Amino acid sequence: MDFYVMTLFPDMVMNGLNESITGRAIKKGVINVKAVNIRDYTTEKHGKTDDYPFGGGAGMVMQVQPIHDCYKAVCGMIEEGHDGVLSETYKPRVLYMSPQGRRFDQSFAEELAKERELVFLCGHYEGVDERALELLGAEEVSLGDFVLTGGEYPAMVMIDCISRLIPGVLGKDASAEIESFHDNLLEYPQYSRPEVYEGLKVPEILLSGHHANVEKWRREQSIIRTLEKRPDLIKDAVLTKKEKQFLDKLISERSGHE
Amino acid sequence: MDFYVMTLFPDMVMNGLNESITGRAIKKGVINVKAVNIRDYTTEKHGKTDDYPFGGGAGMVMQVQPIHDCYKAVCGMIEEGHDGVLSETYKPRVLYMSPQGRRFDQSFAEELAKERELVFLCGHYEGVDERALELLGAEEVSLGDFVLTGGEYPAMVMIDCISRLIPGVLGKDASAEIESFHDNLLEYPQYSRPEVYEGLKVPEILLSGHHANVEKWRREQSIIRTLEKRPDLIKDAVLTKKEKQFLDKLISERSGHE
Repeated sequence: MDFYVMTLFPDMVMNGLNESITGRAIKKGVINVKAVNIRDYTTEKHGKTDDYPFGGGAGMVMQVQPIHDCYKAVCGMIEEGHDGVLSETYKPRVLYMSPQGRRFDQSFAEELAKERELVFLCGHYEGVDERALELLGAEEVSLGDFVLTGGEYPAMVMIDCISRLIPGVLGKDASAEIESFHDNLLEYPQYSRPEVYEGLKVPEILLSGHHANVEKWRREQSIIRTLEKRPDLIKDAVLTKKEKQFLDKLISERSGHE
Repeated sequence: MDFYVMTLFPDMVMNGLNESITGRAIKKGVINVKAVNIRDYTTEKHGKTDDYPFGGGAGMVMQVQPIHDCYKAVCGMIEEGHDGVLSETYKPRVLYMSPQGRRFDQSFAEELAKERELVFLCGHYEGVDERALELLGAEEVSLGDFVLTGGEYPAMVMIDCISRLIPGVLGKDASAEIESFHDNLLEYPQYSRPEVYEGLKVPEILLSGHHANVEKWRREQSIIRTLEKRPDLIKDAVLTKKEKQFLDKLISERSGHE
């Protein structure tokens, strides 16, 4: 999968993504990440990419020309990657990082992981000229209801999350599946050595070596945690008949206490 | 404000935060960011910080000892910053990045911006030993329902967002206030030079120089966008009487079209 990040801070993006799991996937060639500097495409002689907003107001707006020309260059790079077999109407999927957009979550990540390439547009200042979003056909995507300096961190977060879903990125003992949100349940608590630390002991059952009991305990812990911390998830949890009974008992105990 | 980030990837954190707005705030001394390497505190002779989970399963768990000792070192740094006047019961606020946690948003950021310092614990692998979270009294905080490689990006996102709320970070023409989510409305569309680009024109009204009309148009655009993209926000929007009438008209037009 190829990721193109249109940004004013290409080093920031590459320094982050060259670390850890995404860094290894880049080295192995399982994913490609190219941060493209929007500033390289401005026709303004001093390298400016922003200007005052029409109609007044605080802050600066990223102008349409550098973004549009940067996008055309990215389309050229994509065409090379496809060995020039792109149809004239082919348009890559462009994501614009904005708190106004569709909320990013795991199922959205799964949808995006199916693309051949993704283009991220990172805004800064007060935003970007609306016409740039029109010309690029950009989808607005949001990490959440909060304001950041730029779209770089959201793009890095999304690339990290999407990469983990691409075959070959996580390696053989791929633990992506058993992670958070499996069966719509939160993760069970984890413990590692030593058995006792500052008087705190690992739960007895995890040392028993009895796999079926360990599995049962973990599932129950997941159910308890989900009910406590994220009750909104529990109604869609995938449970066995016995686990459903366990959940019903939990719920009736709780209502009894109130 | 002082931020301490407990991580296995201190360079990644500092490379990111040394850029852009947070980078300038660090240089000005308005905020301090210290990434502390958990690996420096392990007593394991090969520098290991993770081990297999008790009870079996895929992936590795970050062990309690290096995290706890790293935390104690961070408490020492905080004490120095307070000139040693900390009471014995003083505990810094520790945030653990986890999809199980309380959802991060702008009002949570405003709450956190009031702290004197914040400690971030970034997990990796399958998670951290549950006892580490107990010993540190860590609050779990989530960016959203998706799985990432580690807590570094979420910590960087939160530090960026929180920093913007600290006086002196955004400079004089501080545009934090008029940004996204002002009055619970999304931002209006922005335009900058040129007036016409590839046949796309800037809306006439923005070139009129009539400030009251521009302001009215922008507010209406914000209302239209919020209704279209984030109808969940509109019921708490702060509107004038005329704006409420405008909204009601919009809603009745829409229901007429259905």
